[in-house]
Amino acid sequence: MQATACAHSNIALIKYWGNRDHALRLPANPSLSMNLGGLFTRTTVRFRDDLTADQAVVDDQLLHGAALARVSAHLDYARRLAGCTLRAEVISHNNFPAGAGIASSASAFAALSLAAATALGLQLSERELSTYARLGSGSAARSVPNGFVVWHAGSDHASSYAESIAPADHWLLVDLVAIISAAHKAVGSTEGHRLAESSPFQAARVATAPARLAECVQAVLSRDFERLARLVELDSDMMHAVMQTSTPPLLYWLPPTLAVMQRVRALRAEGVGVCYTIDAGANVHCLCLPSAVARVRAELLAIEGVGAVREASTGGGAWLESVQR
Amino acid sequence: MQATACAHSNIALIKYWGNRDHALRLPANPSLSMNLGGLFTRTTVRFRDDLTADQAVVDDQLLHGAALARVSAHLDYARRLAGCTLRAEVISHNNFPAGAGIASSASAFAALSLAAATALGLQLSERELSTYARLGSGSAARSVPNGFVVWHAGSDHASSYAESIAPADHWLLVDLVAIISAAHKAVGSTEGHRLAESSPFQAARVATAPARLAECVQAVLSRDFERLARLVELDSDMMHAVMQTSTPPLLYWLPPTLAVMQRVRALRAEGVGVCYTIDAGANVHCLCLPSAVARVRAELLAIEGVGAVREASTGGGAWLESVQR
Repeated sequence: MQATACAHSNIALIKYWGNRDHALRLPANPSLSMNLGGLFTRTTVRFRDDLTADQAVVDDQLLHGAALARVSAHLDYARRLAGCTLRAEVISHNNFPAGAGIASSASAFAALSLAAATALGLQLSERELSTYARLGSGSAARSVPNGFVVWHAGSDHASSYAESIAPADHWLLVDLVAIISAAHKAVGSTEGHRLAESSPFQAARVATAPARLAECVQAVLSRDFERLARLVELDSDMMHAVMQTSTPPLLYWLPPTLAVMQRVRALRAEGVGVCYTIDAGANVHCLCLPSAVARVRAELLAIEGVGAVREASTGGGAWLESVQR
Repeated sequence: MQATACAHSNIALIKYWGNRDHALRLPANPSLSMNLGGLFTRTTVRFRDDLTADQAVVDDQLLHGAALARVSAHLDYARRLAGCTLRAEVISHNNFPAGAGIASSASAFAALSLAAATALGLQLSERELSTYARLGSGSAARSVPNGFVVWHAGSDHASSYAESIAPADHWLLVDLVAIISAAHKAVGSTEGHRLAESSPFQAARVATAPARLAECVQAVLSRDFERLARLVELDSDMMHAVMQTSTPPLLYWLPPTLAVMQRVRALRAEGVGVCYTIDAGANVHCLCLPSAVARVRAELLAIEGVGAVREASTGGGAWLESVQR
């Protein structure tokens, strides 16, 4: 009873921040993302009759305490569905650094969900798998389907799921991630989502998100980069405005973050196909048209404080690598 | 018919951004400021019968075009009140650099208003002088009264004026201005105010401003620095969030701006009495308790990108230096 599954990280074009239900991770607003081909988590789940507790190893580190409990609670959901009481061994690897602006929890919980469900012989639809992944980490719902993905906010567990609006090969975009800081972020997303409501701007952000999302979906479907760029930057700036005006304030940007944002804006003003978006961290995702990649990479590496540039391009949905039952 | 008047610049603790009436500069929300003793404009106005047009020299530069027209239109208001048609010569000096985060238009139009009204023999009350100054530059209304000043938003010309809530000697605070960039800002405040409404956050900022202002007035009256600090930073961050999410976006911060913000937060967490606030520019005003000044100045000068630290402390209202009639 073992399966190995992989899932890409994803970058939100229209952001998720704040929940209407924290326990179920029902988001305050719908979101839109692009899977990041090349940045993924590979996870093996093996249910064993010789274990008295779940074990999990992430990037060669044994998990303990709250981190292990989060994985174990996630496995419980699949065990309940399968009527199984066996404990499991979980081995997971990210091919990118965790906790620094690239959403490792998204790819990790998407891969874990697919591996656990498969190891237990559950026949989940993509939609069901997406709702399952969401319970572990909201944005993991979006790492299940292919390419460009909308996560419907929904009103209960079954209605809050993600689905593809266009496959990965619809539009090749490149994400050059300017790595500013590999330091683990001070306030994680799960805790941050709880602070969203304390910002005087969260209600306006949530109320206007569906309209931004609808326009951004159109920009993706019509491959209109200029329109996409404007919306993606506005939505990122709006999320960070909410973060920065919450109580306590969350200021994830570092000085080089701002330098990259300004360089990206200046490049686009020159006609270079690039825009920025920033998750709950200091790194800057620079979405590029393929024609702009070489120029943008060189420009990013020339900015003081940018330690490295990581590259990904539009990626597919979660996939199974092996099954032994 | 000549008068010389001076007025301090001021720093807003609760910010003004956006107008309900652009022509009259009736602000979208009330604001609260502290005059900056030590940073002032000195302006001489001389009405002469040998001039066919107004002349103005600011920091030894002759004004032309729109800048001269703005001064001339401001003089017209006083001329109408006085029934005078003489043209004037205006000589003005700032003792700080213009257009880089220290509000030179506030001190300049406050000093100009007092000098022009006095030269023409008008007997204006402080309230009338404040409304007059407001027509030239909104925040100039606040440079007329003494010390800590509330500018009532009002609903028409006569009701939109500033008044002192506490004199300068009520509370000695020191403003250490971290000078990041002496470059003139790309988008001036008059133009920026017109963009405020395009931000999805402006309505929420305006709606919640009176409550922040009332709490901040209490913090000033009770000399409660910790409460002041929290409100001042939140209000500054809210204004910049509106700026950054307007269309087009206004991103006044530069990388060192962010470095200063973070250093100030870290210092306060250590118990140092300092908070930041930022106007429409890259410079950071670091408001300090007197006991914190030496430490904060040293910390600011150690930050890369901080070119200089300018110092001011709670200042009085506009004053007359000389009159010849």
